[in-house]
Amino acid sequence: MATLADIGVSALINILTSFAFLLAFALLRIQPINDRVYFPKWYISGGRSSPRGTRNFVGKFVNLNFKTYLTFLNWMPQALRMSESEIITHAGLDSAAFLRIYTLGIKIFVPVTVVALLILIPVNVSSGTLFFLRKELVVSNIDKLSISNVPPKSTRFFVHIGLEYLFTAWICFLLYKEYDNVASMRLAFFASQRRRVEQFTVVVRNIPHISGHSISETVDSFFQTNHPNHYIGHQGVYNANKFAKLVRRRERLQNWLDYYQLKFDRHPDKKRPTVNTGFLGLLGRKVDAIEYYKQVIKDLDTLMISERQRVIKDSKSVLPVAFLSFDSRWGASVCAQTQQSKNPTLWLTDWAPEPRDVYWRNLAIPFVSLTIRKFVITALVFALIFFYMIPIAFVQSLANLEGLERVAPFLRTVIELKFIKSFLQGFLPGLALKIFLYILPTVLMIMSKIEGYIALSTLERKTASKYYYFMLVNVFLGSIITGTAFEQLHAFLHQSATQIPRTIGVSIPMKATFFMTYIMVDGWAGIAGEILRLKPLVIYHLKNMFLVKTERDRGKAMDPGSVDFPETIPSLQLYFLLGIVYAVVTPLLLPFIVVFFAFAYLVYRHQIINVYNQQYESAAAFWPHVHSRIIASLIISQLLLLGLLSTKKAAKSTPLLVILPALTYVFHVYCRSRFEPAFRKYPLEEAMSKDLLEKSTEPDLNIKAYLADAYLHPIFRSFEVEEEELVEVRVDKHETHAASPPLMSEHSSPSASHHHHHHNIEEPSPPHYNDYPTSPPSYYYHEPSQLHYGYHYQGEP
Amino acid sequence: MATLADIGVSALINILTSFAFLLAFALLRIQPINDRVYFPKWYISGGRSSPRGTRNFVGKFVNLNFKTYLTFLNWMPQALRMSESEIITHAGLDSAAFLRIYTLGIKIFVPVTVVALLILIPVNVSSGTLFFLRKELVVSNIDKLSISNVPPKSTRFFVHIGLEYLFTAWICFLLYKEYDNVASMRLAFFASQRRRVEQFTVVVRNIPHISGHSISETVDSFFQTNHPNHYIGHQGVYNANKFAKLVRRRERLQNWLDYYQLKFDRHPDKKRPTVNTGFLGLLGRKVDAIEYYKQVIKDLDTLMISERQRVIKDSKSVLPVAFLSFDSRWGASVCAQTQQSKNPTLWLTDWAPEPRDVYWRNLAIPFVSLTIRKFVITALVFALIFFYMIPIAFVQSLANLEGLERVAPFLRTVIELKFIKSFLQGFLPGLALKIFLYILPTVLMIMSKIEGYIALSTLERKTASKYYYFMLVNVFLGSIITGTAFEQLHAFLHQSATQIPRTIGVSIPMKATFFMTYIMVDGWAGIAGEILRLKPLVIYHLKNMFLVKTERDRGKAMDPGSVDFPETIPSLQLYFLLGIVYAVVTPLLLPFIVVFFAFAYLVYRHQIINVYNQQYESAAAFWPHVHSRIIASLIISQLLLLGLLSTKKAAKSTPLLVILPALTYVFHVYCRSRFEPAFRKYPLEEAMSKDLLEKSTEPDLNIKAYLADAYLHPIFRSFEVEEEELVEVRVDKHETHAASPPLMSEHSSPSASHHHHHHNIEEPSPPHYNDYPTSPPSYYYHEPSQLHYGYHYQGEP
Repeated sequence: MATLADIGVSALINILTSFAFLLAFALLRIQPINDRVYFPKWYISGGRSSPRGTRNFVGKFVNLNFKTYLTFLNWMPQALRMSESEIITHAGLDSAAFLRIYTLGIKIFVPVTVVALLILIPVNVSSGTLFFLRKELVVSNIDKLSISNVPPKSTRFFVHIGLEYLFTAWICFLLYKEYDNVASMRLAFFASQRRRVEQFTVVVRNIPHISGHSISETVDSFFQTNHPNHYIGHQGVYNANKFAKLVRRRERLQNWLDYYQLKFDRHPDKKRPTVNTGFLGLLGRKVDAIEYYKQVIKDLDTLMISERQRVIKDSKSVLPVAFLSFDSRWGASVCAQTQQSKNPTLWLTDWAPEPRDVYWRNLAIPFVSLTIRKFVITALVFALIFFYMIPIAFVQSLANLEGLERVAPFLRTVIELKFIKSFLQGFLPGLALKIFLYILPTVLMIMSKIEGYIALSTLERKTASKYYYFMLVNVFLGSIITGTAFEQLHAFLHQSATQIPRTIGVSIPMKATFFMTYIMVDGWAGIAGEILRLKPLVIYHLKNMFLVKTERDRGKAMDPGSVDFPETIPSLQLYFLLGIVYAVVTPLLLPFIVVFFAFAYLVYRHQIINVYNQQYESAAAFWPHVHSRIIASLIISQLLLLGLLSTKKAAKSTPLLVILPALTYVFHVYCRSRFEPAFRKYPLEEAMSKDLLEKSTEPDLNIKAYLADAYLHPIFRSFEVEEEELVEVRVDKHETHAASPPLMSEHSSPSASHHHHHHNIEEPSPPHYNDYPTSPPSYYYHEPSQLHYGYHYQGEP
Repeated sequence: MATLADIGVSALINILTSFAFLLAFALLRIQPINDRVYFPKWYISGGRSSPRGTRNFVGKFVNLNFKTYLTFLNWMPQALRMSESEIITHAGLDSAAFLRIYTLGIKIFVPVTVVALLILIPVNVSSGTLFFLRKELVVSNIDKLSISNVPPKSTRFFVHIGLEYLFTAWICFLLYKEYDNVASMRLAFFASQRRRVEQFTVVVRNIPHISGHSISETVDSFFQTNHPNHYIGHQGVYNANKFAKLVRRRERLQNWLDYYQLKFDRHPDKKRPTVNTGFLGLLGRKVDAIEYYKQVIKDLDTLMISERQRVIKDSKSVLPVAFLSFDSRWGASVCAQTQQSKNPTLWLTDWAPEPRDVYWRNLAIPFVSLTIRKFVITALVFALIFFYMIPIAFVQSLANLEGLERVAPFLRTVIELKFIKSFLQGFLPGLALKIFLYILPTVLMIMSKIEGYIALSTLERKTASKYYYFMLVNVFLGSIITGTAFEQLHAFLHQSATQIPRTIGVSIPMKATFFMTYIMVDGWAGIAGEILRLKPLVIYHLKNMFLVKTERDRGKAMDPGSVDFPETIPSLQLYFLLGIVYAVVTPLLLPFIVVFFAFAYLVYRHQIINVYNQQYESAAAFWPHVHSRIIASLIISQLLLLGLLSTKKAAKSTPLLVILPALTYVFHVYCRSRFEPAFRKYPLEEAMSKDLLEKSTEPDLNIKAYLADAYLHPIFRSFEVEEEELVEVRVDKHETHAASPPLMSEHSSPSASHHHHHHNIEEPSPPHYNDYPTSPPSYYYHEPSQLHYGYHYQGEP
């Protein structure tokens, strides 16, 4: 148990670390050479172009204006300057709602901290069992300020219970307001947005196979019958995994070609680079690298063309999934919300995710398989959470020095050095755990993918909840009750329902100092590290060195990244849990939480404005999770306080607390039915008013043309090497649509007609199409050169 | 612990009792005077008219044909003669599906019984720990045949576990087939049915109040905007509780008038009956009874007319609820399944229940109140289940002889008689409990009503599940672990999660004899009592004696009743639970279950064919509950077996059982997603095909007229004293509808226009209306004289 002084030292170290990170950030960000690392969002949104052209040679790389060094913290006020509505326009609603989690944390914990410190510290200190009676015991100063200091059977526990009620009421009030806000922001976002293709599109899964009819015909006849007034067509989905592999291979080869080309261009006087054609470029004949790669890519292109034709022609590669297009939001909304077929496992309709949010690979999973997958993954996640220590301990037992020496005898001389030996002995056992924790989010994401969700946003949300459970059990409970999660599980199974909160509750005050340190290391220093972006910085400069030829390549090398929802949201929820649990137990922990929320708010605001570029827009679909996790934290805190008090023999006051979890739960149920539909369904009132408005303002709109290739399978897009060809194809498509009524089915019909169109006429598109660019829609990458996003659809592992 | 001989004696007694009941039934049912008690369903469906007219005077009352007495058990083959599809036509799908629960029980338990007896009895007997080692202990013969006889650590437990797997697989297989069957029966029922008003009707709740507009205007403008192509009108709902009170009072007075009239008519020579006008007919002036009641009824009629006008005129009595009419099933289906408003607590749409299924009183409950009500009732049900013994014990402590003597000293001499005293001392303490158990279903029904469900069928289902929980805790668990439910709760809270199934599991084999007796008393004799219909018999003859004047009155006196779902379905589920739990533990219990299912099947088939007249048709909406309770029984049996085996130290075999509950649960989840939507939603494919079929076969159909007053609030119907007037009003209404476009809103508009129409023209209705009688639809009472059902809507307490 640490004393106040220990905590002070730890705080000092972490504050200094954070400042070091901030200082490094401040220095690096004003160097022009790093501009694309620290301001990529502005390049993407077109607000910034390369600064290098305007200065002298040195000025292109290093900032020589020393005045700017004096104001190195000015990013903080800058980050606050943008208003929320500007952030929504600039970075999307997801980002804005994400920032609201931090403001919610600040709003919750600032008043709670003030009240708790002012009221509870005097109450706890003046009780003084620990202070006066047990000075000889090893009791920290912090415990003297916590609930541990109150003697058993004291009537002072009424104060703690009263505050628990007060805090619960305050948090519920804020949660309600915030849920209301976010829900209306979401609806306003939908209402204010320009037309979005997903508003007119419904995804249908498990299309039954009717013999003698193609899937395309089945879909058309079913929906022309059952949604006669609104259905206008559909786009099929192909099983293109082999083609996607080819695309990835071509991208890799192109990189090598670029590398050699650049190498040669920079030093044209040297001899042309060569490469071996055999295994891994080590064996085989030596050939001219540039010519070789050009030839290989050309061969690959031929292969890809034939593979694509095979996919399109082969009716077996059409999956029983389709994207349905409707002529109005109302029609799509109706189709998405209703049951279509007598057999509820067929014709499953749901809102289509945004085109860039679709996870194509999971579209083909049949219904029965989904149930089994969910069950298996649930069991696996459970095992992962409670038994992950077993394989790690096994690996640790292998990864000792003896094992290493046996595997790699040539290392023996190095290992036997005393300094290195002791370092390795301290380091190796932890390595397996570190690696595990590092790859954990990836593992959880893979699990979510196996579960079969069809949108990236859903995948990220599901990964986030798995990660949250892992943190709850292994970080929160695991720190409070020492022992592995498996041991805890065993203990819980063999303890009574009333004993469990008591066991945990008793240990809580003792672990306050641990969590203070945790918050400082993970929260303060970790967030400061976040703003520094060390990894993207290094990768960008490496790419710059080896691959970048033109400005466009430099744009490609820039990796803005996006808010890492699956990791950040669960961590945030853990901080809420810590703050809420310790609010009445050890209020001294609260200031650390407040500092975390304030600092992280600034950092993420800056990052969202200047760096991140969200891959998709789910319109704050994660908020119900945030809300319910905070409610769960409230209930956990109440149960633990109940357990803690029951060991304090406060028989008079404790029963008062029993009703609170029930009340909190009722509040949750109410909120869920009040607000959650806004995140799951699209009300018809809204759809209809938007439709009517559009009909009156844009009576000539050709919605068929607008939707034409919004959900075109990536296979059609990924291979357009030349931009002009892409444009041709589109124009050509529009012409076809205007001509033949059963329009979009042709994309999915297993004929090669689509392919033929590629090399066809070049008529200009009719004027009104220009107003509604079909693709890429405006929320794709804004640079016209970024047309390779099609790859990413299939590129996801 | 009873021996085999004890059980044999008990069985004999119960079999004799059952036969006595059956004999009494056989004698009573062939007396013409009881014909309306034992065959009311045939009177209602028009298949039978009074038999009294055809015979001589004695023959009217007593069956003199002695041949029929010899075949007194012939109702059994008769009951089996009707096919299932005939039952559906005759009594509705609810009844047919209800009978399928019994056949499911037979299908499950006959093979299980055979297998369990053939395999387990030898296995258990030959093990023989009890048989050989503990003869000195009080061990019954039955225990020697049960799992208790197997010594600890025996490998024979593999047999029990194997059978548990086998039985689970068999039951799941049957459950799946049965769920599939019932789901397709439900869809076929909807498809084969003639047009039903509820297919075109949606109920909308929580209509917001917009100042300056009446509710009717708000509804029309909202749905004309958001469902422009399908919405055709709505019917408002009035707060008519005061009027309903008047209606009930009028009915009571009419009964008295009938009674005195009949008394006078039978003996016209005696002086006319008189009555006192004062308190309870005891005080006040003596007047001629017939004249007096005629006058009072006349006054009441005037009052009712003015009250009804007040309700119709007063805009405050219009509730924020309406029944929306659509021109197609598709339109209604879409509106029922989608979210209408941005605020998900407003404009809540759902399928309208059948008109006779609506529970009008709950239509006005606002959204917030619903959440609170549900919570409060859940808490109350929990308290009722676990603490009901407390008030009963309190009443019991009061209701002893001393208390009685103090309250009523004049009884002392009687009580002091030794015989009476001992009788009372044995009887009184149990009385409170008996009364409680008797009124329990009513109490649970009242609780469900408070929860706010708007359909009688839903109310009955919710009551059934509450009753099931009560039986599960207090009959099943309460019998296994002695002690009150509260003591059990306390014990469970203080036991670990693994200890609970162990505690229960150990006691299970010991309670087998108790449950055998329970099945015989409650199942065998109880069901035989059911067919005797003693209570309706007595009430019918009392009514016949005092109130019946005409054939029509006799029809009214006849009370067919209906299957008492809230009580019978939970009992059935308890039998499933007992059978499944004891299948591998004490297989000797299974034959008792099989006999119960077979006998009850016969009895209920007879009752459904000849007696019951269902009040509503929910199209087997209770099946998902039946399914999931049986699944729950499976999981309970697996957990208890796990607990039982863990005390037998069968460490090798027990772990095999752990996976089974998880597998069973996965099966349940799959079934739920596969079949439950068929019970909750109406697929658009179905709706559209029915619409198209109708459009092609009946192109002239005026759907507006058809729906005109289907959901007319009972207030408009209940007061039509003369039938002809009723007909007039309808014709009149149709005329109005054909004339003015915003048709049905007039019913709900707070004008008195409707009332004026009563005394209007008598034009014949247009010919095509005759084909589709608007009301009462054909599934109402079939006798044209039965037009008073309107009262029942409001008459529900």
